Amino acid sequence: MKLYDGGRAPNPRRVRIFLAEKGISVPYVQVNIGTAENRQPAFLAKNPMGTLPVLEFDDGAFLAESVAICRYFEEQKPEQNLMGRDSRERAFIEMWQRRMEFEVLNLTAQSFRNTTEFFKGRIPQNKEYAEVCRNTAIKRFEWLDKELANRPYIAGDRFTVADIILYCALDFGGSVNQKIDPSLKNVNAWFKRVESRPSAKSSLHPASAQTGMKG
Amino acid sequence: MKLYDGGRAPNPRRVRIFLAEKGISVPYVQVNIGTAENRQPAFLAKNPMGTLPVLEFDDGAFLAESVAICRYFEEQKPEQNLMGRDSRERAFIEMWQRRMEFEVLNLTAQSFRNTTEFFKGRIPQNKEYAEVCRNTAIKRFEWLDKELANRPYIAGDRFTVADIILYCALDFGGSVNQKIDPSLKNVNAWFKRVESRPSAKSSLHPASAQTGMKG
Repeated sequence: MKLYDGGRAPNPRRVRIFLAEKGISVPYVQVNIGTAENRQPAFLAKNPMGTLPVLEFDDGAFLAESVAICRYFEEQKPEQNLMGRDSRERAFIEMWQRRMEFEVLNLTAQSFRNTTEFFKGRIPQNKEYAEVCRNTAIKRFEWLDKELANRPYIAGDRFTVADIILYCALDFGGSVNQKIDPSLKNVNAWFKRVESRPSAKSSLHPASAQTGMKG
Repeated sequence: MKLYDGGRAPNPRRVRIFLAEKGISVPYVQVNIGTAENRQPAFLAKNPMGTLPVLEFDDGAFLAESVAICRYFEEQKPEQNLMGRDSRERAFIEMWQRRMEFEVLNLTAQSFRNTTEFFKGRIPQNKEYAEVCRNTAIKRFEWLDKELANRPYIAGDRFTVADIILYCALDFGGSVNQKIDPSLKNVNAWFKRVESRPSAKSSLHPASAQTGMKG
């Protein structure tokens, strides 16, 4: 079994944090998104969508989609639990996980894709649409600040996959000029809480995370 | 327990089909998307995102996000199984479920939102971006046609939640002028296969599905 990883992009990173939290060690194979290695035929044979990460099973099957990969490992090793201990808790954590993906990360990602130099000429960019996404994301951050007024983590009292997804989204957003306004005290406090976890720190540098987790 | 339902929109419909396949009966409450009832304070108190469907538990908790609702019911009543019988199968079905959402439905929905009269003045529409989504969706349909050359259903040999999601996406797409090209024989054959299921037929008319499932 091995995991095709993609550096600092938010989706590969969320799986690295997830595995670090659970203390699971999987050999990583770095795929260079910067040179579009994930859009070349060799990688597309593994995942026709060209997205990362991808988990390769020993029988040669390829599992794409970060949350599907997380759920597979969650079932293999339920503790530290990150996706829920009973059906009701699992459902509510999935609700928050999906909200973080559809209502936050997706906006940041679209804003990035439609403005960055990297995607110029690769996809038809649309700066006006990027601005719409950016403005909607700002509203979402305000909503999140209210949500986080009465609880320490996105889905409730404890750290879950929903926090991992939001953290990767916001950290990525910060690097593409989608910063959280300092007036949003609760979101900023939450961010510091998550950022201080060893899993978040080790996930910053894929190569060292790999070495650290293989040991 | 009751389910806030939203007529012919694809996400509420996928839960109706899911429940019909499993033979689960839940009282429905119709929310009128046409008059933006889902954007009014009374509904936003249930789900701040304004999306449908929403499941209300007897203790007053509100579960949003169609797939989270499906997973809750899947765990309550694992057969007819629609999301996988072991951890590996669950992971691969989730991969396909997510691909259908992110790579197909999302494009159709964006194309719809950015062109339709209904959203004029409600959101900043962007016709150029709609066209980009439309063109990408066409490529996805061609990819799907190859995928379906060697298997009857999206995730493999049997009907799963991934088929439900794609079916709702394509049927909705057809109604907003995103039709499947007749040359895509496999996708069209798959569509007819799913369309002929009693669950798909009964889900077309929310009111009658409600009556039928309550009995």
